[in-house]
Amino acid sequence: MEGDRIEEVRLVHSPVDEISHLALDIGGSLIKMVYFSTSREQPIDKTQINASRDSHAVSRSSKDGHLLNGRLYFLKFETSKINECLDFISSKQLHYRGLQHCGFPASDKNIIKATGGGAFKFADLFKEKLGISLDKVEEMSSLVSGANFLLKAVPSEAFTYVNGQRNYVQIDHNDLYPYLLVNIGSGVSMIKVDGDGKYERVSGTSVGGGTFWGLGKLLTKCKSFDDLLEMSHQGNNRVIDMLVGDIYGGMDYLKIGLSSTAIASSFGKAVSENRELEEYRPEDVARSLLRMISNNIGQIAYLNALRFGLKKIFFGGFFIRGHAYTMDTISVAVDFWSKGEAKAMFLRHEGFLGALGAFMNYQLVEEFPDTIHLAGEKNRNPLVGDLNDNGVIECCVQARPAVED
Amino acid sequence: MEGDRIEEVRLVHSPVDEISHLALDIGGSLIKMVYFSTSREQPIDKTQINASRDSHAVSRSSKDGHLLNGRLYFLKFETSKINECLDFISSKQLHYRGLQHCGFPASDKNIIKATGGGAFKFADLFKEKLGISLDKVEEMSSLVSGANFLLKAVPSEAFTYVNGQRNYVQIDHNDLYPYLLVNIGSGVSMIKVDGDGKYERVSGTSVGGGTFWGLGKLLTKCKSFDDLLEMSHQGNNRVIDMLVGDIYGGMDYLKIGLSSTAIASSFGKAVSENRELEEYRPEDVARSLLRMISNNIGQIAYLNALRFGLKKIFFGGFFIRGHAYTMDTISVAVDFWSKGEAKAMFLRHEGFLGALGAFMNYQLVEEFPDTIHLAGEKNRNPLVGDLNDNGVIECCVQARPAVED
Repeated sequence: MEGDRIEEVRLVHSPVDEISHLALDIGGSLIKMVYFSTSREQPIDKTQINASRDSHAVSRSSKDGHLLNGRLYFLKFETSKINECLDFISSKQLHYRGLQHCGFPASDKNIIKATGGGAFKFADLFKEKLGISLDKVEEMSSLVSGANFLLKAVPSEAFTYVNGQRNYVQIDHNDLYPYLLVNIGSGVSMIKVDGDGKYERVSGTSVGGGTFWGLGKLLTKCKSFDDLLEMSHQGNNRVIDMLVGDIYGGMDYLKIGLSSTAIASSFGKAVSENRELEEYRPEDVARSLLRMISNNIGQIAYLNALRFGLKKIFFGGFFIRGHAYTMDTISVAVDFWSKGEAKAMFLRHEGFLGALGAFMNYQLVEEFPDTIHLAGEKNRNPLVGDLNDNGVIECCVQARPAVED
Repeated sequence: MEGDRIEEVRLVHSPVDEISHLALDIGGSLIKMVYFSTSREQPIDKTQINASRDSHAVSRSSKDGHLLNGRLYFLKFETSKINECLDFISSKQLHYRGLQHCGFPASDKNIIKATGGGAFKFADLFKEKLGISLDKVEEMSSLVSGANFLLKAVPSEAFTYVNGQRNYVQIDHNDLYPYLLVNIGSGVSMIKVDGDGKYERVSGTSVGGGTFWGLGKLLTKCKSFDDLLEMSHQGNNRVIDMLVGDIYGGMDYLKIGLSSTAIASSFGKAVSENRELEEYRPEDVARSLLRMISNNIGQIAYLNALRFGLKKIFFGGFFIRGHAYTMDTISVAVDFWSKGEAKAMFLRHEGFLGALGAFMNYQLVEEFPDTIHLAGEKNRNPLVGDLNDNGVIECCVQARPAVED
């Protein structure tokens, strides 16, 4: 499923690109990749972003730091097809065209930053196939670094989703913490973030993206996560979910604040109907599943925010994938359970928090808000949307020389 | 599926039984029925329970109240087969052999107490088929009345379930409130109970018994809830669930307290395996499903208990059905999320809280702890276990004459 998109990304590289800082987040279902690429044609300046300068020259200019202008590339692969990822790294020689191009010691060239459980599970495979050592970055730490970076450095990163409308949220850098970060990967982690490097994983649930995709695959025979999401968009959950009105004969149950259309029991209608799985439209099944899982995550997230008095809840992870119905259900769940007091917020670069966090773990100055621009806004690059799939951010980062190895 | 058991119950009645106080809890998936039956052969006394006395005579003895000795009968029917329930009521003439036998006004004879959404949905059906008017009792109120009655009146009603062992909990009547009541029916209601008639539904989830049964039916083609539970008992959830060790290459993720055998993503392994639904053992699917749902309910219950500072959590509802693995998973979930600070407690008459509550709504004196005995303990009646299925409680209740109507 990734082939086409990877080809598209390849086309963006110019022959003189300098690729560096490859970082991976190897999760249970997906591998997320981030790398930075400088280009000699790109304008770069230490003090003025729009002046033209050779990035290669800049990279050798100072011992205090390097201003690198270029692009951050975002790609994903299925973990079960990890060889596609290895082939991609190998074909682009990402691991050889590494940090030394930016003035970093050559000893770093075969070490790449990696997070997620796969950084442990596949360490031997990377060593064996590519001679790469994975420098493991703790998973929660990576998620938090990535989220903090995005929230502080990327304008219009966070938004609420209400009635089908995105409303971008201006982040006050002095009033960002504490917040709850809900990362929805195969499973879900809920992390209370109190500052840079200050965080605690306070909760989570095993009912996450892997559940949607895994159960969805078993129930609908669909071939990919995106197909399943697309199907859910066409479905009607009321066909299979037991609504309050189904139990109460079409009436609301107002005493406890449940309307007749509220879901009383997810998939509950399948109990009393003598229909086999094949007699339900897969679209309806996918929709019920998506709603069950989104709603559940929204509820558990809200209960945890409440527990720690957190006013801000940011949702990230590849499950969301900018999907309107998913965001809508999570938003409605948070709104419903909080009686309107809390709002769910989403991140435009939701799927890459961990990979970005691992990337930040190179000796980079993480916060450079004035020099980060979304290519999609600046250049109308068609590859850039929400970066739910592959894409780029045109940006400038400051790299510090490694203190040691 | 109910036929056999109903037959068993019928055998218990003697020809001279006086049946009265029929109450129904008509849920989305199941109808729960409770009724009281006196027998002329039963010993009864207003002051001394073991003295012999004619219950019929007693029922006319006083204007202040009647001591009725007899049995509470518990039955269930599937809501989708409501005609079986109507036929049962009709065949036993439960609605005609009603309250007037105990000295109540004849005008009550065609009115029965009913709770649950079906009390609204099927009101016309009861009227049309049997001439019965359903006197609706609010659902949450019924659940609370039923739970309070059981916790105060029935010895050894509540128990914890740890390492496969039941440990009965002595309830201190002066220290019962507040507690969290988690009723797992088709959907789940979570009710903060502060006293008799003092309660608030604080939360709930649509992922409940109807989800287990509905999704389980679609996934395994099993024919009944009990078959599904039995299958889950034979299954291994690790076949389909993605464990922490699956992501971390067999390692624990100790930094955040997750062992390698913890479930990272329910059904997550189905994502990467190219296996169709039919290639999984239905037993394994049923087990993953049961564990996902039990764990989720345990977690949401704990978060709500924490929110309101409730130390006691009682789980009821027909989902549990005395099933060891269900209770074990809920117990472990509450223990895990509370870091050992909270304990899940279960009720022996878990499935009939609502029906008992509706029953209490007749003009009965609810608390009569000294005269309630479990027939199973007293008489070794083979029909009585946990009353997850049909069964009886041998007991004595005090009935007040109706003030009006």
